[in-house]
Amino acid sequence: MKKVKELLIGKSLKSTVGDSHLLTKLQALAMLSSDALSSIAYGPEQILLVLVAVGASASWYSVPIALIILVLLFALIGSYTQVIHAYPSGGGAYLVSTENLGTIPGLISGGSLLVDYMLTVAVSTASGADAITSALPELHQYNLQIAVGLALLLMLMNLRGLRESAAFLMIPVYTFILATVALLGVGIFRIFAGSLPYQAPAHIGTTVGGVSLILLLKAFSTGSSSLTGVEAISNAVPFFKQPKEKNAAKTLVMMGIILAVFFSGVIFFAYWLGLTPRADVTIIAQMAQKIFGDSVFGHAFFFIFQIATALILAVAANTGYSAFPMLAFNMAKKKYMPHLFTARGTRLSYSNGIISLAIGAVILLFIFDGQTDRLIPLYAIGVFTPFTLAQVGMVVHWRKKLGNKFLLHSIPNIIGALISFVVVMILLIFRVSEIWPFFVVLPLLIFCFIRIHNHYMNVAEQLRLRKETAEHKFDGNTVIVLVGNVTNVDIGAINYARSVGDYLIALHVSTKEDTEKEAEIERDFNETFPDIKLTVVHTSYRSIITPAVRFINLAAKQAKAHNYTTTVLIPTFIPSKPWQNIFHNQTGLRLRYYLNSHEDIILASYNYHLKK
Amino acid sequence: MKKVKELLIGKSLKSTVGDSHLLTKLQALAMLSSDALSSIAYGPEQILLVLVAVGASASWYSVPIALIILVLLFALIGSYTQVIHAYPSGGGAYLVSTENLGTIPGLISGGSLLVDYMLTVAVSTASGADAITSALPELHQYNLQIAVGLALLLMLMNLRGLRESAAFLMIPVYTFILATVALLGVGIFRIFAGSLPYQAPAHIGTTVGGVSLILLLKAFSTGSSSLTGVEAISNAVPFFKQPKEKNAAKTLVMMGIILAVFFSGVIFFAYWLGLTPRADVTIIAQMAQKIFGDSVFGHAFFFIFQIATALILAVAANTGYSAFPMLAFNMAKKKYMPHLFTARGTRLSYSNGIISLAIGAVILLFIFDGQTDRLIPLYAIGVFTPFTLAQVGMVVHWRKKLGNKFLLHSIPNIIGALISFVVVMILLIFRVSEIWPFFVVLPLLIFCFIRIHNHYMNVAEQLRLRKETAEHKFDGNTVIVLVGNVTNVDIGAINYARSVGDYLIALHVSTKEDTEKEAEIERDFNETFPDIKLTVVHTSYRSIITPAVRFINLAAKQAKAHNYTTTVLIPTFIPSKPWQNIFHNQTGLRLRYYLNSHEDIILASYNYHLKK
Repeated sequence: MKKVKELLIGKSLKSTVGDSHLLTKLQALAMLSSDALSSIAYGPEQILLVLVAVGASASWYSVPIALIILVLLFALIGSYTQVIHAYPSGGGAYLVSTENLGTIPGLISGGSLLVDYMLTVAVSTASGADAITSALPELHQYNLQIAVGLALLLMLMNLRGLRESAAFLMIPVYTFILATVALLGVGIFRIFAGSLPYQAPAHIGTTVGGVSLILLLKAFSTGSSSLTGVEAISNAVPFFKQPKEKNAAKTLVMMGIILAVFFSGVIFFAYWLGLTPRADVTIIAQMAQKIFGDSVFGHAFFFIFQIATALILAVAANTGYSAFPMLAFNMAKKKYMPHLFTARGTRLSYSNGIISLAIGAVILLFIFDGQTDRLIPLYAIGVFTPFTLAQVGMVVHWRKKLGNKFLLHSIPNIIGALISFVVVMILLIFRVSEIWPFFVVLPLLIFCFIRIHNHYMNVAEQLRLRKETAEHKFDGNTVIVLVGNVTNVDIGAINYARSVGDYLIALHVSTKEDTEKEAEIERDFNETFPDIKLTVVHTSYRSIITPAVRFINLAAKQAKAHNYTTTVLIPTFIPSKPWQNIFHNQTGLRLRYYLNSHEDIILASYNYHLKK
Repeated sequence: MKKVKELLIGKSLKSTVGDSHLLTKLQALAMLSSDALSSIAYGPEQILLVLVAVGASASWYSVPIALIILVLLFALIGSYTQVIHAYPSGGGAYLVSTENLGTIPGLISGGSLLVDYMLTVAVSTASGADAITSALPELHQYNLQIAVGLALLLMLMNLRGLRESAAFLMIPVYTFILATVALLGVGIFRIFAGSLPYQAPAHIGTTVGGVSLILLLKAFSTGSSSLTGVEAISNAVPFFKQPKEKNAAKTLVMMGIILAVFFSGVIFFAYWLGLTPRADVTIIAQMAQKIFGDSVFGHAFFFIFQIATALILAVAANTGYSAFPMLAFNMAKKKYMPHLFTARGTRLSYSNGIISLAIGAVILLFIFDGQTDRLIPLYAIGVFTPFTLAQVGMVVHWRKKLGNKFLLHSIPNIIGALISFVVVMILLIFRVSEIWPFFVVLPLLIFCFIRIHNHYMNVAEQLRLRKETAEHKFDGNTVIVLVGNVTNVDIGAINYARSVGDYLIALHVSTKEDTEKEAEIERDFNETFPDIKLTVVHTSYRSIITPAVRFINLAAKQAKAHNYTTTVLIPTFIPSKPWQNIFHNQTGLRLRYYLNSHEDIILASYNYHLKK
């Protein structure tokens, strides 16, 4: 058991290990921009998917839509630069909303983000699977399995603890950046060289029948999924090298520029080459095929580009694995989520958060059959809800801090909040058929957060030391030993019981089925312990639990009446190897589970260790 | 927790409930023939799938192949009639092989069957999903999800306990029989009425290029998957009404005739109508579409037929859920599988077997992407291996029983064994690329069975009462109480410890992180228990487990040296509702897990019950 665990996730670490790594700008860009940059693998495609529903000639509208998305991008970059300076200890929508807007908006942000990180993993792994199967069409039918496999692989890697490996993450991110630069560069070169003909089905500005404002708004709202992940840097300021805020802000701007260039490039070439979405090959894969061309050299470049895309998407999914456990930890510290999210595993990773995230992502992949385009609208609403709240929170923050002069500082936040809010509204009005699950899950989550909080408050109140619970002196101890087959184990258990107890009961519960066996047990017991009476209880249920519990409960009441304590001693044997426990029945465990709900009973187990 | 369980699987049952249901022939036919009859939904299609690989005109070969399969069917029916009379207490390949051929052949049978039942569930649910999506093409992309959903639904129904509901199972089986009779009847009528034209791409006897003996053998071997399930009745003789053997034999013959008619009918119409396999619509769905025709009435019949097919396939999958837990139970009784398969759940179903089966089937569905045709070869090898062994076992049985006159009685068994063996050989030689996983899994299983058996023998030997382990008298008791935050819980725990113990240690383990907290705990403790010294252990690991275990272990050694017992008392509080346990950390549980591996330590927990 322990060995398997070590093999999969590595040996235990001391808690001081790994806290001292601080990130340079280039490292931080690799760690924190993968989510944003990788979204060019699916964002532009979403715009085209909506548009070509009315015909291929509508695809030119992607260009003006992209321009609006770029405006939104720059507003968000401006706005998150503010967040960096206001919350140098690591902002995050949950914190900013809670501090400035109150508990409920904070919980809305927190809940949205938790769901959103699951969607980050689901979308990125599904999209990674698309990238792989665009290059290897024979694997197309395994898209779902590949995505699930990626999600689980990342889970294992994170259980090992990934923080030490920023250097390792730099490779895929920079490979992707280089590969995309190469793609766009070669494309531009070939346009100027005249070898990449203009193939758009309709010029920009052509009137296309069936294109309505609603259609354009829909395309814009899902296309805005290209902007997911721009908040990552503002949450991670403490991990930067000094001067932290300045470095973080610079990194954010750097990332914004790269994203803007890549996004514009993909939109432009999709238009120039007249690409339309296909079920089996992604838009950027089609683009890479056309731009790199049909030579052996071109094929090689195409494959490298696809691998780089799949890898950065895996790294993007990984950001979910770093962000979810941290958020769950913060919410658990404030008692809105179960304590178990604060416990670190043996590798110092927040195992419970990592595992919960993986389960959530796999369920999402399974429900949506690993299809990126069906996950995207939910992803967008999950991102832009906390975006909006965080920006509004920032405005309140400036007002608190600067008083009347707050407006000037708030401009980027106000713009950010407005556009984010518009995206949320568009999604809400025009894509409600796809995003309704979000509005079922979110209130449910918030309800749970509040219930959990009340529970913890309640328990703390009940446990508080009170003077009236004073010292109590008992007159003696009753010990009940449970006997099954009479073995070596019972000898040790009875020896202990004699030492501790003043009154000893040996209890055997017999199912009526096997009277012969019962007689044998009685004979064995009387031979081995001639001075102790064996109490036999009969039952017509197949389980011995209920009658045992009933008897013990009565005995405990009697003992209490005589001011005696009651100890139930369960003799158990421990196999020489822990995994062998699965071979032996869990009656002891189940009995303990049921006895737990009865008062004034001490549960004890006597362990006999097998040697081989 | 308990309520959710009751909602899903129902209330606990007494163990005498439900043993008295005995089956009439018509009930037994419904309960035991679904697996065999439902295989016409995929068996004939498998033959065609292999044949049309060389061209549609090769499909006529399905007719002679079907004739050979019918011979095999009658041989098996004859042979299993013998089994019924020889093993009236319920035969089954595992028992017959073990008794007559020895342990290893028995384990081979048992292992094959365990895998095979998983495949029964996987194939039947996958095929059920095909039936549903043949009628509702828009669901086609969800085949895998539907199949997994069916498998899990059946798991829940079986955890409730299904035996009481033979009547309930009769409906789908007889609906399917009626629907198939209607299909074949309408087909024959329309042929005679001249409204169903002959459309075979080639007459019987046409020479087709590319048809080799290997191809025909391949088609035959996968087509023989239509015969899976014919053994079911011979395993269930004790469940029949008196005269048991006679009724069982009659039911078996009845089932054989129905299966023969249905199988021949499907093969004939597939040939007559010139049907070829399609990815999205099954052969029998195509057949039903053509025979019932395009009228509204015809459409309605088509839908009813598809629903009936899906339902009987669900019932067929269900036979896996009755057979697997029984076999696992029998193997566990003989100590070849973990004891936990002998434990009945609260609803008297063998929950562990049911859950293991469901997990296995879901994994198979997932690996093979819910595709029936990829599961079938494995299914066939898993069925025909124990078929062969059981028939050989029967020959040995007759020889033991009848001496030299055994040959006459053995004829059906010899024929059965030979043909089954030929099927196994054909699969082995020509389809090894598809069935190799079987030959990885089976030896592994057998290895496990033997290891498990050795383990149990080993443990029994070590636990046997020996005179040398005599009574021992201790001089006193050391009690170690673990203290975290000082709360009401500790007061009760210390009271108990004072009563039981002669020497009391209060132990607090402190992670260096929070010295303020440590001081607070020490102050609280000294105020509340001024007469007891608090022992504080410091650690640089984040987990308190390791240092606690180390300290306790040392203390236990000391105690033993003074002839004292050692009890570790863990004060715990029990939330008012059991599910609230997930909110509280599991340090106690984990500590218990690690202390279990140390000798001479009694683990006890003091429970404090919260009231709200």
